[in-house]
Amino acid sequence: MNKWLIAAAVTASFGASADEGMWQPYQLPAMADVLKAKGLEIDAKSISKLTEFPMNAVISLGGCTASFVSPKGLVVTNHHCAYGSAQYNSTPENNILRDGFLAKSFEQELPAAPGSRVYVTESVTNVTDKITQGTDKLNGDAYYKALEAADKKLIADCEQDDGYRCQVYSFHGGLEYYLIKQLEIRDVRLVYNPAESIGKYGGDVDNWMWPRHTGDYSFYRAYVNKAGKPADFAKDNVPFEPKSFLKVSAKGVSDGDFVMVAGYPGRTNRYRTADEVQNQFENYYPAAKELREQVIALIEQSAPEGSDARIKYESTLAGLNNYAKNFTSMIEFYGKSTMLQDRRATEAELTKWINADKNRKQQYGKVLAALDALVKKGEQHQARDMILGYFYYTTMPATAERLYRLAHEKQLPDMEREPGYQERDMKRFVNGLESIDRRYDPTVAKTLAMELLNRYAALPASEHLAAFDAFFGIEKGIDAAKLSKKLDSMFANTQLGDKAVRLAWMDKSLEEFKASKDPMIQYAVAMYDTNEKIRNEDKQLAGDLMKIRPQYMEAIIAYNRAKGKPVYADANSSLRVTYGNVKGYSPKDGMYAVPFTTLEGITQKDTGVDPFNAPVAQLKLIKEKHYGDLYVKSLDSVPVNFLSTVDTTGGNSGSPTMNGRAELVGLLFDGVYESIIGDWNYDDNTNRSIHLDSRYMLWVMKYVDHADNLLDEMVIVK
Amino acid sequence: MNKWLIAAAVTASFGASADEGMWQPYQLPAMADVLKAKGLEIDAKSISKLTEFPMNAVISLGGCTASFVSPKGLVVTNHHCAYGSAQYNSTPENNILRDGFLAKSFEQELPAAPGSRVYVTESVTNVTDKITQGTDKLNGDAYYKALEAADKKLIADCEQDDGYRCQVYSFHGGLEYYLIKQLEIRDVRLVYNPAESIGKYGGDVDNWMWPRHTGDYSFYRAYVNKAGKPADFAKDNVPFEPKSFLKVSAKGVSDGDFVMVAGYPGRTNRYRTADEVQNQFENYYPAAKELREQVIALIEQSAPEGSDARIKYESTLAGLNNYAKNFTSMIEFYGKSTMLQDRRATEAELTKWINADKNRKQQYGKVLAALDALVKKGEQHQARDMILGYFYYTTMPATAERLYRLAHEKQLPDMEREPGYQERDMKRFVNGLESIDRRYDPTVAKTLAMELLNRYAALPASEHLAAFDAFFGIEKGIDAAKLSKKLDSMFANTQLGDKAVRLAWMDKSLEEFKASKDPMIQYAVAMYDTNEKIRNEDKQLAGDLMKIRPQYMEAIIAYNRAKGKPVYADANSSLRVTYGNVKGYSPKDGMYAVPFTTLEGITQKDTGVDPFNAPVAQLKLIKEKHYGDLYVKSLDSVPVNFLSTVDTTGGNSGSPTMNGRAELVGLLFDGVYESIIGDWNYDDNTNRSIHLDSRYMLWVMKYVDHADNLLDEMVIVK
Repeated sequence: MNKWLIAAAVTASFGASADEGMWQPYQLPAMADVLKAKGLEIDAKSISKLTEFPMNAVISLGGCTASFVSPKGLVVTNHHCAYGSAQYNSTPENNILRDGFLAKSFEQELPAAPGSRVYVTESVTNVTDKITQGTDKLNGDAYYKALEAADKKLIADCEQDDGYRCQVYSFHGGLEYYLIKQLEIRDVRLVYNPAESIGKYGGDVDNWMWPRHTGDYSFYRAYVNKAGKPADFAKDNVPFEPKSFLKVSAKGVSDGDFVMVAGYPGRTNRYRTADEVQNQFENYYPAAKELREQVIALIEQSAPEGSDARIKYESTLAGLNNYAKNFTSMIEFYGKSTMLQDRRATEAELTKWINADKNRKQQYGKVLAALDALVKKGEQHQARDMILGYFYYTTMPATAERLYRLAHEKQLPDMEREPGYQERDMKRFVNGLESIDRRYDPTVAKTLAMELLNRYAALPASEHLAAFDAFFGIEKGIDAAKLSKKLDSMFANTQLGDKAVRLAWMDKSLEEFKASKDPMIQYAVAMYDTNEKIRNEDKQLAGDLMKIRPQYMEAIIAYNRAKGKPVYADANSSLRVTYGNVKGYSPKDGMYAVPFTTLEGITQKDTGVDPFNAPVAQLKLIKEKHYGDLYVKSLDSVPVNFLSTVDTTGGNSGSPTMNGRAELVGLLFDGVYESIIGDWNYDDNTNRSIHLDSRYMLWVMKYVDHADNLLDEMVIVK
Repeated sequence: MNKWLIAAAVTASFGASADEGMWQPYQLPAMADVLKAKGLEIDAKSISKLTEFPMNAVISLGGCTASFVSPKGLVVTNHHCAYGSAQYNSTPENNILRDGFLAKSFEQELPAAPGSRVYVTESVTNVTDKITQGTDKLNGDAYYKALEAADKKLIADCEQDDGYRCQVYSFHGGLEYYLIKQLEIRDVRLVYNPAESIGKYGGDVDNWMWPRHTGDYSFYRAYVNKAGKPADFAKDNVPFEPKSFLKVSAKGVSDGDFVMVAGYPGRTNRYRTADEVQNQFENYYPAAKELREQVIALIEQSAPEGSDARIKYESTLAGLNNYAKNFTSMIEFYGKSTMLQDRRATEAELTKWINADKNRKQQYGKVLAALDALVKKGEQHQARDMILGYFYYTTMPATAERLYRLAHEKQLPDMEREPGYQERDMKRFVNGLESIDRRYDPTVAKTLAMELLNRYAALPASEHLAAFDAFFGIEKGIDAAKLSKKLDSMFANTQLGDKAVRLAWMDKSLEEFKASKDPMIQYAVAMYDTNEKIRNEDKQLAGDLMKIRPQYMEAIIAYNRAKGKPVYADANSSLRVTYGNVKGYSPKDGMYAVPFTTLEGITQKDTGVDPFNAPVAQLKLIKEKHYGDLYVKSLDSVPVNFLSTVDTTGGNSGSPTMNGRAELVGLLFDGVYESIIGDWNYDDNTNRSIHLDSRYMLWVMKYVDHADNLLDEMVIVK
């Protein structure tokens, strides 16, 4: 899905309650009284200014959040956000991912994994008028394309400034559009990561779980050229000097204290309609969980533990497992909740409110029904789309398709190409092609393809794609032996497994594609027209949704305004601020999750076996109660992780957790299992974010890893 | 093991701390100040008098505890203590175990399972002098036998009173002996049990676990003849009228409140030596866990789910699983604890204190070493004894041995027979033989025998028993096919599977045994001399231990007295009182178990599938928040179970939990997983007992089961 389709997918529940809310910085001054009462000590206005402290210290890594913590461009983020860079720099002889790494000087710092970036947001401009102007009478495909064209123009203008990356973000499903301009620093270096047995302590077992004892932090440094501009890695680049940075608190927070988190949350679905909720939880998630678990099982079987293939799929498996757990939790808590009934009830309330006023009725009276009709249309091919979506995991067919599409797009002037295929995208395109070597094995891919084709074949005839059936020779159903042979031959004979060959295809003509004997290229050519047709149908629907959903959101906003409640937009990877308090919760009747874990919990969990294999030196320090100056009397120990009510989701990883003075008291790194469903519905009782406590980070740095150079570089508030 | 051996096995750690302690009632007046400060409102002296309120309302069921709750002999105990009686009265057509049972009138009450008894303790007399008089110079076997003879004489005298059961209990490993005289009521009837899905809610999954939601209560009634004397079941018997009974509190307790529990705890090992601790946790439990889990697996394989054989072994499996979980917890928490080091440190302190005084040194200086030498001797055949001990689960060999031993004992005058083989024991003996039909299947038994023989054969030669080897023809190791045939033939050809045949053997002569062709009887005859030899060696050791361990306990008591601390004796199934407070605990870092669960927790856990299948009517009441007059505002619900610090163990099941006015606020029914190791070492932080809350019992009685007749019969304090 491209960005527009993502934006169009954003949707509907109701106004924020308690600590719910991922606020756009500009919204904060209006909430100054609440924030002050909660415990914010600095001026709420200052948080609304992106180019001032503290917001200009909060940065994006693309998928993760981070913050500057020194005047010399030192960046702190989650260990799991810098994982790839530690992995990239590891060798069997010098396994810095496993053992940890500390650069004792700038010279010892290591280049981060290819494609690593630091994005510093410099401006956020409301461009709704520019995006939508002259589109009043357009619908569907035409509306979609008009907006896409306006979007590309704004970006192109914005990126005239060298070293910047610009993007237009849709808010409230297309009610508002903002152009976000970010400095794109591309010389990023790894400065320090603790041993994996600290930084990923608890691993997948503890993922999304409380109690938690993960030292989930690592340090990068941003470099620019001598002129202070973003540049490719070069030995004589110099540390970037941010306009401001966060001080690190050695005092930390206590139960009940105010905390706020600034970061780049990815996606939430708080405003989806009841019909959408029902489809998602009763059809989509159960089916996706089943398929995903099957894909996991097949990868594990065809890439046995200890094999080279398994190493290549570890990261894929981690991602698959992560969301298998996510879906499982979603389904479990949906079953226990009254979420659907609640959503229907609020929709009924909204409808009542709309119908109570003649003007409102005229303006919004038919919007929900129209929206739900479109939504239903979009679900039509859900089963097929899911199977074809998982084809991504077979790697080569999708790679060939992307390459052939590039050849097509290249026929067009840059500004008319699809986003993702413009010149500005080519660096990422190359990175994507290069990285395949590290995550592809033909035997595994073929096994998955066979399973997916079998599932596809079982779909009703109406869902079949003629070109697809013809290419695989399954018009009349599957002959397993024959199909297996065909797939074997495709994966054996394709030359796309060779990086140089893949890259070379980026510059080939349509004719060369059409003449190719490479079976994957042949697949791409065979599917192209069908894919185009589907893409156009999708745009048609997306355009209609982009037209109707904003009307629905407008009604919701008006309804809340009438009740005096502000409305935040669903997360969309743009910079947000959320606030709340340090607070435990009851995961089940009879149990209370207290808001802090301590060093002793590490010893309690430790088995000596990954992922519960803390370094011996650390366990010794704990046994000796060597708390040093990070000792907290009320806990009789050093806190490790803590819980709060702040409203976060994926993408917030690595976000600075700040106290009322905007000092760094922790790093957001996860949410509890019971709150996974929170992406759809924030529940005051169970929505809890999990933070690394700054005191644990400082304790490990000081006593375990002796990172004195970094401790000296940062400003530590005692 | 007979009672003397059990008594002799009782042992050593150190004085009580905080709420630790299972106190003999006579000890309480000396602790009146502490009790009053804690929250006891009635006079501590009254609790010390067994024939006064409230202690005369606390009764034993033999293995469980119970209490009178009406002037008409109504008895409340745990559901799991009356489980056998509900099972005994269930038929496929009228499954009262599954569906519950309520007698709406006395006439509808059902006879409890055969052998059910209510024991009312009437006196506890210190008989140490009578038991030990004239034994100063005796040791070993001679000492053992002298005490056994004195014991039997005291019992015989005491049981002259018709309808009484008397027993001599050893305290502090033989330092003191008490004669306990109990009225033995043998017409016991089932009055009311809730549905299994309430009374055993959570089943084995939740066993020993918190949070807990088990309605673990049932009601019996004690009947006597018209003359008010214990009698066998007869239609015209009348309800027993106890001298007092407990009022039931509808107000219940709150977090922090004082509670006390009176009951019959079975066994603890708080005063074992460090060597004993080390052997038990590092050798015995790991080996026993492994063997037990193997036995469980073999029963499950040879009696598949759904088979008739499985039904017969359900109760055996429950018992095996119960202690497999117990051993697992013991091993886990031993591994995490410093219990052994602590015990060694306290022993070192004691030794230092002893050696600091010339007289003390002379009196106790060599006791610990002597004790540990005996202990070591007792562990000599531990591996073999464990294997032969599990032979009990093959049923028939042990049955034949008991029968043949009875034939031998019958040669002697009653007073000279082994305890368990006297005339007073014959009713139980018959019950035991009868019950075999309900719990024996030859295929399962043979499978277990094969496994145990294989393990036995693998023991070092020195541990082999010649008679055993000869009988099974395994002098030169095992020929699997041959042995299998032999076992098949034994289990196929024995007539002991027939109840009438078993009972008939109770009256046969030694000659008839010797001439029998029944392979199990032949086994018993073949093993008799060897068994006798082992029993005599055991008595020799037991006698020595009974001589030396009291000296060790005397030293411990003196040491504690010097520190002003009272010492309680290890549990020995005699009546004890323990007190404490309602209190939660931290099962692990980052988590706190709150002291109350609520009705909503049942709905949370419910899956509709056993053991989480609460009655539909109950779930409906909960959904409707139909709390009635049992509503507790602070919980916004009705409490179900609660935690306290009282010190309890197996045998305490069904004990009344009382508030400071001795009103019934709950029933003790379990301890938490982390406290299983508490039998060896009470830990203030984790030792928690689990109680049924009286308010939940009343709520179910009133709103789910409509047991209005019982609610009217009891005195309920509002």
